[in-house]
Amino acid sequence: MKIDAVDFFYFAMPTIEDIGDGSQDALLIRVAAGGYVGWGECEAAPLVTIAALICPMSHSACKPVLASILGAPLDSPRDIDRIHAAVHRNSMDVLQADHALSGVDIALWDVLGQRFGEPVWKLLGYERAYPKTAYASMLFGQTPQETFDKARSMRERGFRAVKFGWGDFGTTTPQADRDQVMAAREGVGADVRLCIDAGTIWADDYMQAHARLDALKAANVHWLEEPFHTGALSAYRALAAQSDPVLLAGGEGAHNEHMARHMIDYGGVGYIQIDTGRIGGITVAKRVADYALTRNVRFVNHTFTSHLALSASLQPYAGIREHDLCEYPVELKPLAYDLTGAHLLPDANGDIHLPDAPGLGLTPDLTALKPYLVETDITVGGKTLYKTPTL
Amino acid sequence: MKIDAVDFFYFAMPTIEDIGDGSQDALLIRVAAGGYVGWGECEAAPLVTIAALICPMSHSACKPVLASILGAPLDSPRDIDRIHAAVHRNSMDVLQADHALSGVDIALWDVLGQRFGEPVWKLLGYERAYPKTAYASMLFGQTPQETFDKARSMRERGFRAVKFGWGDFGTTTPQADRDQVMAAREGVGADVRLCIDAGTIWADDYMQAHARLDALKAANVHWLEEPFHTGALSAYRALAAQSDPVLLAGGEGAHNEHMARHMIDYGGVGYIQIDTGRIGGITVAKRVADYALTRNVRFVNHTFTSHLALSASLQPYAGIREHDLCEYPVELKPLAYDLTGAHLLPDANGDIHLPDAPGLGLTPDLTALKPYLVETDITVGGKTLYKTPTL
Repeated sequence: MKIDAVDFFYFAMPTIEDIGDGSQDALLIRVAAGGYVGWGECEAAPLVTIAALICPMSHSACKPVLASILGAPLDSPRDIDRIHAAVHRNSMDVLQADHALSGVDIALWDVLGQRFGEPVWKLLGYERAYPKTAYASMLFGQTPQETFDKARSMRERGFRAVKFGWGDFGTTTPQADRDQVMAAREGVGADVRLCIDAGTIWADDYMQAHARLDALKAANVHWLEEPFHTGALSAYRALAAQSDPVLLAGGEGAHNEHMARHMIDYGGVGYIQIDTGRIGGITVAKRVADYALTRNVRFVNHTFTSHLALSASLQPYAGIREHDLCEYPVELKPLAYDLTGAHLLPDANGDIHLPDAPGLGLTPDLTALKPYLVETDITVGGKTLYKTPTL
Repeated sequence: MKIDAVDFFYFAMPTIEDIGDGSQDALLIRVAAGGYVGWGECEAAPLVTIAALICPMSHSACKPVLASILGAPLDSPRDIDRIHAAVHRNSMDVLQADHALSGVDIALWDVLGQRFGEPVWKLLGYERAYPKTAYASMLFGQTPQETFDKARSMRERGFRAVKFGWGDFGTTTPQADRDQVMAAREGVGADVRLCIDAGTIWADDYMQAHARLDALKAANVHWLEEPFHTGALSAYRALAAQSDPVLLAGGEGAHNEHMARHMIDYGGVGYIQIDTGRIGGITVAKRVADYALTRNVRFVNHTFTSHLALSASLQPYAGIREHDLCEYPVELKPLAYDLTGAHLLPDANGDIHLPDAPGLGLTPDLTALKPYLVETDITVGGKTLYKTPTL
């Protein structure tokens, strides 16, 4: 097969709120090859990512991402590897390229899955897809009481792991943060795994994070996520040396395999969190999962958007039994929830099961999506480089 | 002062060639504050960078770069630091943000320079700007003979350092590369510093680079640049352990301070090469220069575009006498050369001197630029988010 067409669609909620909720818009990628159609989603700023796909060439290492994809052969996973190598060579100086490639890569795997009638995880070499314990991923409440109520309701819904993050956490006093964390623990109960997400709030300031460690230990927190920027490796390393038994987690900011390895090798994280919609897709995420296994670090998805993105983000470590957690967004905006007709719902045990259907096992619901479509036009030097195609 | 306006302009040569020449287009940024006007240039894909500046908000950490800049106070370098912190917080998930911020940062320093009547290097705390030995930066010839001729002509023009890169280097055999490197050495003569730029051609393949080391040593090469991707730190480290007396150089791909530090701390480079038009501007480049000094690593600019960009890229290490080399592009396309009316020309010694004039000491020649202007329109959801402003 050859890649015949790559189309992309920008969707958004009618109003975008100024909160840490990444489910308010979406960039969907549709790939057609050999009569098959696959879908992927970029977890990225839609307009900037569209520009990376179609921008005019600046020089030999600064070409639009699509230039390395359209017309390329697609008969096996090796062809996807070749496309990655070409994009990295030809779009090296387009910083946004990895985010753009991510959604395309996911769609390419979906196409191969249709072609061979196999789920992606099987094409990745896994014998089976183990169930993952869903952790409910939520924003902190505005008060400890609100956090307690959210935590309690997640417990009642049967989740065996819960994560709170963002909101005001880390921006006021250690005591205020302690109150939030303790409220979360009280709400979920003693037997639920509790994770805390600092959302890089302390940049690279080790002391700010250190001032919260006692509270995290007292609340028996499973992991502390993103105390620092993805690149602040020495701060990660210093904190990891003090945080036991609380593990450090990070990696959602990694936009290539190198950065994820650095978090493991130099940062000392216990969990590496990978968003397939950012790091370069399923291909790169799988390489990170393989590497994590050799370093005794646990792989976990980062997903805060649709169930299409959720399926894509679980494929890379589906067959690794001991890496048993998965992020499960529970506060999706209607756009992200309606993006697929089918959903990956937790079973009575709070576990998520990947579909056995070909490809990602989920497809976008185009009728439901239509009202969210954002018509976009980009004209450069009198030439229309992008115009929202027909859905 | 407050930042009253930020405008940006996309310029391009009528034809963009598929070669490693980054001088074929340009994105210029104009900042107005308190009646002063400053200019900066992004070394980045223009359309993608424009999109990063003006894209609709996706969520609280995925806002357009301009949202953190327009209206912000600008009375001192501390205000520029605050703008950086705001952009990193508010545009954390816009991968292209660092490239966009770079040109804005440069223009902000230019404005402050106008305001205080001082060159930027003085505002950065340097007592004086030391001359830098210009190294002529060129693409390899298509044959060793052509490379020899180019090298000879650079020697005749008085350059005391020359760098060759890209072309076919690294893509065929070690013997072919040896012929090219030897031709370059023969052309420049024994007393000129010769550097070789592999342009990341071996990705992370240590053995490919290792196979060229003997030839590089035999030609008394000063540095080998970018044998690997910026992130391939363990490959850099392994090669650095074998390359003496050839130093490794890298860092142009760094789009934040962390990445540059990683090249130094984990990669073992002897030269850290920073493009102010990519890493986040003069502010971030200066932080890297300060750090390099403490680690006994030499700072050098990366510049392959206009003399406005050249001035911006020399400011961060202007006052460090022992960091004495500077990249000097000698094959600029007319757009990049005509971008400024004045130029930084090597003296009889082959040295470049930064201007004493306020700010960057160079301004764009708008009349000369006009024919290169690329009219650009971006419309999202029926709203025009960008339209090339009046030059």
